Amino acid sequence: MNESSKIARRDRIYEGKAKIVYATNRSDLYVQYFKDDATAFNGEKRGVIQEKGVWNNGISCLLFQYLSERGVKTHFERKLSPREMLVQRCSIFPIEVVVRNIVAGSLWKRTGKPEGTVLPEPVLEFYYKSDELGDPMLNEDHIRVFGLVSSGELKKIREEALRINGILKPFFKERKILLVDFKLEFGTTMKGELVLADEISPDTCRFWDADTLEKLDKDRFRRDLGKLEETYQEMADRLGVEI
Amino acid sequence: MNESSKIARRDRIYEGKAKIVYATNRSDLYVQYFKDDATAFNGEKRGVIQEKGVWNNGISCLLFQYLSERGVKTHFERKLSPREMLVQRCSIFPIEVVVRNIVAGSLWKRTGKPEGTVLPEPVLEFYYKSDELGDPMLNEDHIRVFGLVSSGELKKIREEALRINGILKPFFKERKILLVDFKLEFGTTMKGELVLADEISPDTCRFWDADTLEKLDKDRFRRDLGKLEETYQEMADRLGVEI
Repeated sequence: MNESSKIARRDRIYEGKAKIVYATNRSDLYVQYFKDDATAFNGEKRGVIQEKGVWNNGISCLLFQYLSERGVKTHFERKLSPREMLVQRCSIFPIEVVVRNIVAGSLWKRTGKPEGTVLPEPVLEFYYKSDELGDPMLNEDHIRVFGLVSSGELKKIREEALRINGILKPFFKERKILLVDFKLEFGTTMKGELVLADEISPDTCRFWDADTLEKLDKDRFRRDLGKLEETYQEMADRLGVEI
Repeated sequence: MNESSKIARRDRIYEGKAKIVYATNRSDLYVQYFKDDATAFNGEKRGVIQEKGVWNNGISCLLFQYLSERGVKTHFERKLSPREMLVQRCSIFPIEVVVRNIVAGSLWKRTGKPEGTVLPEPVLEFYYKSDELGDPMLNEDHIRVFGLVSSGELKKIREEALRINGILKPFFKERKILLVDFKLEFGTTMKGELVLADEISPDTCRFWDADTLEKLDKDRFRRDLGKLEETYQEMADRLGVEI
């Protein structure tokens, strides 16, 4: 009997736009189940991308594993099934961390700098996880003064986000993919350890083909560019994901 | 013949929403002329507040003088006339600095915290001076990486903004006024000195009566609260402005 077979899914803890989190028979472990649902523009646009959950779980497991092996603390325990990831139970900070290497999306709108402008160094942004408020951008003063994350944690999160970028950028480059920008979430485990959580997938990153600059991520859904299923599968293939 | 009489206004350098800047016969000095025009919501709402220019020039001169005497470097030279301030010629940084002591306005919308919430410590925000982009909020990474202000200058600006708040908050409190938030602009003089510039007035600050919490600033115009002329005059009177 292997370790996996001992984990039993229990109550649904939380259902988000693209994932469901379940409790398990172990109080310190949760299961993340990846759905095929796709949403954009704060839920205004909705759709389904067939098998997205399978590819996103596969890609996320692979990337969390890769980061763990390079010393990044993550919530990842192991892949349980094509759509299920076993993770450490975490209390997630109420902020999203965005790391940007190339101008795209809201940074284009915010600064007027052309999409595709390569930044001389990475830019970090923080967003308040609030559907009601539309996930507004916050600065570090807001985060600290409103007590969303302590100063020490914020410093650690900033360092980890930049370290993760430093590991992932060359990983993708070797696979002919530009890591344009990506969103991270962090949390603390029941033991009080600050870890990377959530997922890293074409839903949470902008990936461009390094040669053609073709978009290989959820922007295809946001902008109605088609080839949705093919793109998620293509990304999984390029990264060597096994289902 | 006094010093003032030697200054002659020359070409108009720049016309903004509330002020006109003129060159003078001295290459290192400009004249700021305060208009009665009022605008809000990035120019969508327009109006005139009679004598606003006189009160705002008077208030700004008084506050710049007060800050100068307490060691803050400003562009202020002296009051030339009821609507004219003589200032050092500056190259203004393309960012607005907002200091907040109490939740109001966009911070209310951004965080969902109730208007009037007293912050445990001041919050600083930076906005990109761009009418075209709608003056978007930037974080310090944006400012540094896009080269809008150098790291050293940004550190200095942050320190100065907090120091100015530390001087002005008690000044207003003694006059039964809460300094809710205010916007500052900084620039560098021809000698390369970083100085506080622009204006400090009911157009650029939120002032609330300390007892009644009545609004004593441009929010009366933004929100159609009436008593516009009376409010600007009231603020000038409370501060002891002489016309």
